[in-house]
Amino acid sequence: MATEFPAHDVGFEFDIATAVEPVGVVDGVHHFDTRVHPGWDIVGNANGGYLMALVGRAVALATGRPDCVTITAHYLAPCPAGDARITVTPVRAGRRFATTMASLFLRDASGGEKEIIRVLATVGDLSTDPGGPSAMQRSMPEIAPFDECLLMSDTSVNDFAHIHGRLATRGQPEDIAFRSGDASGRATMRGWFAFADDRPVDTRALLLASDAFPPAVFNLRLPAAWVPTVELTVHVRAVPAPGPVACFFDTRFVQNGLLEEDGEMWDSNGVLVAQSRQLALAPRG
Amino acid sequence: MATEFPAHDVGFEFDIATAVEPVGVVDGVHHFDTRVHPGWDIVGNANGGYLMALVGRAVALATGRPDCVTITAHYLAPCPAGDARITVTPVRAGRRFATTMASLFLRDASGGEKEIIRVLATVGDLSTDPGGPSAMQRSMPEIAPFDECLLMSDTSVNDFAHIHGRLATRGQPEDIAFRSGDASGRATMRGWFAFADDRPVDTRALLLASDAFPPAVFNLRLPAAWVPTVELTVHVRAVPAPGPVACFFDTRFVQNGLLEEDGEMWDSNGVLVAQSRQLALAPRG
Repeated sequence: MATEFPAHDVGFEFDIATAVEPVGVVDGVHHFDTRVHPGWDIVGNANGGYLMALVGRAVALATGRPDCVTITAHYLAPCPAGDARITVTPVRAGRRFATTMASLFLRDASGGEKEIIRVLATVGDLSTDPGGPSAMQRSMPEIAPFDECLLMSDTSVNDFAHIHGRLATRGQPEDIAFRSGDASGRATMRGWFAFADDRPVDTRALLLASDAFPPAVFNLRLPAAWVPTVELTVHVRAVPAPGPVACFFDTRFVQNGLLEEDGEMWDSNGVLVAQSRQLALAPRG
Repeated sequence: MATEFPAHDVGFEFDIATAVEPVGVVDGVHHFDTRVHPGWDIVGNANGGYLMALVGRAVALATGRPDCVTITAHYLAPCPAGDARITVTPVRAGRRFATTMASLFLRDASGGEKEIIRVLATVGDLSTDPGGPSAMQRSMPEIAPFDECLLMSDTSVNDFAHIHGRLATRGQPEDIAFRSGDASGRATMRGWFAFADDRPVDTRALLLASDAFPPAVFNLRLPAAWVPTVELTVHVRAVPAPGPVACFFDTRFVQNGLLEEDGEMWDSNGVLVAQSRQLALAPRG
């Protein structure tokens, strides 16, 4: 079953870069051809949220369910742009949720391939989900207004995180002052997520948003080196309303070379649309 | 490769209840026979942390690496006690970490079986891990001393969560007063995790600890009904020092029938030994 959703214009960059082509179902496993696109990378390696969104697209098509209610990716190897394939293996399909395992394999010039991420996802349709009680214990944290935040794509301070060229993402000024050597000392990163070409932010874009900001620990006086993600889990909690999504990332515990980064994403109506947590390796300089 | 560790007395209840027997490796997949033991349940269904620890045991044996640095389980069906089998499929083995997928299948009387949990885990050896920088942004939260907390196994208020009979777990008085109808109104659950038979708390026991307390939302005025876990992720951050482990659970966002519960576990030296997060269905009465 290959259901098409959502009905975004195929001309949007994110939809082009996360297009997957179903090539068959063998022994229950759904196979897709795809391409890890250039331009969604940091120094040549595809962004982890982009890769999760790419696999999430295949999971949605294979299951006929649009929303990754909870998705975990384990990152196995850095990923340059190139031809790739995705497999989606059904685990269980229930009335409300379906669970699947998925993998992305990058092809190489010699005809070989390498597994890049392994994914476990439970998917559903949040627009028709039966729902249940609400009892929010906190509302959206404080953030500077969109217009007072600074475009992350400003190339005078960003000539390596190419992904920001695709985005209209903005950072709260004190949280991105590390870029000019003025780290805040607080492991917090706040900002607004949006696409440069005004593509609506849907639940799949939230997977990208969860990893689209600089690491919160760049605001500590640690070496500003690569912070490789070991594992990223995103809980999508609601379908976002139109408009940019407010994003909050925070690291509390850098301990013996490992750190967590927790994220919250809130839509323009003040609804919690996603939470994320990743385990990453602390920068070693 | 089936390496034995750690060298706990096999007489401890937790080791008996999480014993797995390797029965062969077929096409790279490690097969184990096991048994979901009675007595680790809530009203007849095995506790989610116990099931994660059981699968974690097989993952450790299959990989020769003792510590689940990050492990995610998706819960597919309730699980009564009974004979079961576990498969562990290697995904990638590197120098520092190895990644595996695993499944637990419960057998039924008719010779059939049902998948209970699907697991994705990246494992290592934290005792020899190369480590790296530390920059802790927070220390251990406040908790009442062990002796001032109340035994969760007190059967005058616990005749359904049988797992507490195996544990010497204690709850902070105001956080477990919901049991006598006096919910605190704060979705927080603090306590100390230990075994009734004084088994040391190792990294595998932390998987159990991450789901061994009553849901923090029992302190809200929601129906005190079952809170089924959809997904649980545990990051094991260090090997615990001897003694009970201080545990902190907190739910911030109950929204449209879904909630997260975040956990922190700290050892007797004040070291962060694990973080957890689960996505669960809110109680519906």
